[in-house]
Amino acid sequence: MTNTQVTVLGLGAMGKALAATFLTGGVSATVWNRTAGRDAELVAAGAVGAGSVAEAIDNGEVIIAVLLDHASVHQTLDPVVSQLRGKRLINLTSTAPEESRELARWADEHGIEFLDGGIMAVPSMIGTPASSILYSGDKALFEAHRATLELLGTAEFLGDDPGLAALYDFSLLSGMYMMFAGFFHGAAMMSSAGVSAQEFAQRAVPWVTAMAQGFPGYAGAIDSRDYSAEVQHLEFQQAAVNAIVRASRDAGVATDLIAPIAELIDRQIRAGHGAAAFARTIEELR
Amino acid sequence: MTNTQVTVLGLGAMGKALAATFLTGGVSATVWNRTAGRDAELVAAGAVGAGSVAEAIDNGEVIIAVLLDHASVHQTLDPVVSQLRGKRLINLTSTAPEESRELARWADEHGIEFLDGGIMAVPSMIGTPASSILYSGDKALFEAHRATLELLGTAEFLGDDPGLAALYDFSLLSGMYMMFAGFFHGAAMMSSAGVSAQEFAQRAVPWVTAMAQGFPGYAGAIDSRDYSAEVQHLEFQQAAVNAIVRASRDAGVATDLIAPIAELIDRQIRAGHGAAAFARTIEELR
Repeated sequence: MTNTQVTVLGLGAMGKALAATFLTGGVSATVWNRTAGRDAELVAAGAVGAGSVAEAIDNGEVIIAVLLDHASVHQTLDPVVSQLRGKRLINLTSTAPEESRELARWADEHGIEFLDGGIMAVPSMIGTPASSILYSGDKALFEAHRATLELLGTAEFLGDDPGLAALYDFSLLSGMYMMFAGFFHGAAMMSSAGVSAQEFAQRAVPWVTAMAQGFPGYAGAIDSRDYSAEVQHLEFQQAAVNAIVRASRDAGVATDLIAPIAELIDRQIRAGHGAAAFARTIEELR
Repeated sequence: MTNTQVTVLGLGAMGKALAATFLTGGVSATVWNRTAGRDAELVAAGAVGAGSVAEAIDNGEVIIAVLLDHASVHQTLDPVVSQLRGKRLINLTSTAPEESRELARWADEHGIEFLDGGIMAVPSMIGTPASSILYSGDKALFEAHRATLELLGTAEFLGDDPGLAALYDFSLLSGMYMMFAGFFHGAAMMSSAGVSAQEFAQRAVPWVTAMAQGFPGYAGAIDSRDYSAEVQHLEFQQAAVNAIVRASRDAGVATDLIAPIAELIDRQIRAGHGAAAFARTIEELR
């Protein structure tokens, strides 16, 4: 398995981490970057530094694209599409689900096997147990190279829809960004009383961790669309969120992030759902 | 310590849980609610059911208010303020920091010892190790009744500023609401591909828990206001968040919650901070 010839296209922080992890794992890697001179460390570690995309693809059995975005995947691969025929392309570029699906169609039209992946890790985590990569698309391709892919982090195949890994990726990232935004908002409130963000973080980490255990409970209500609630119904949540909005203003903190949540709850209550469970808020989104 | 005479004003779900926990812990409790008939279970468990606020206060050495909001605290206590002189009032009503500070001033004017608290738990958690209550205001009052308060959950005194417990409470709650909003947003995206919220929750809980470990790192940048970044600077985050906004639209999910985060990042970049760390986003809030 580890004698697979891998080519990594794109040597940003993530591409470098992937290529270095392949080399450490004994996988032959050819590397390429649009801007020259980013491959020195990798070449010193045993990688083949390709002078062109064509050369890089020629060397590889499995081509891994870790580029800037969807447009750069086409800019890089369209000129060499005939060379890709019969090759295996794994797209780890952060592309939106519809973009991953477009790449899958494009690959199919050109006789290229295609797997899409969403990297649930920052570069420093690659190759460690904390790294997880989600895949979807061509299952046979995934299974054939699973051992190689496991070098990078836990590898999971989610389904045939080539957009599914990206959809999970983006959905988890949206949750992460909103959680970070919530931390920033809370830290800004605390700073109004001279409390440091470090002090706040010491309480916020266990708090958020404990509260996240409530996701499955909300999920049950969301999936069944049974939003009946005995306690802490939407009117209770409205009072709490409105109080946070007022407290934010009192503390001189902008309400750009918390006010939209209050607005979603308000709309549900105006629609007659004041006695429903908090999870009903999702109906304003989908 | 446990022979303290406690009075609980307000028998919503939280007030009932507090009173029941006192009784279980061997503390004598008098209970009162504006609407009659909510004390039957507590009286059966040994509580004294007071027919009026005046009677309830007369029975108690420590008066715990767990009412609807700040206005209801005044509506309940203003008529009996002369009776409160020399008593100890602990406000566990969810009041905003400025409201807690106002209550402290009012209590001081009327010779009432005052402690404010923020309950970091839902009613079902009261009395369990998962329950935490933050206090601020009169430290001597807190210390005198600490053992009694510990029956309800971990009791921590944060400082003399009577608004501090509420500020922590609201800051942590703002983080919680934004995290829940992020879960709803992600679940709505996943539902576009037929993935259940339960399936998403199974990945979202460990993901969010792992990512929350990043708070202290962000806190360091926030406290030092040193937002230099080697990787994943604001322009990188902008691309990622904008891609989430597009992917949300593709999935038919409203962008009410994610778009404001994109907007804060955009404003920082327009102000010339594209190469700064993500944590600099907080400067748009405070």
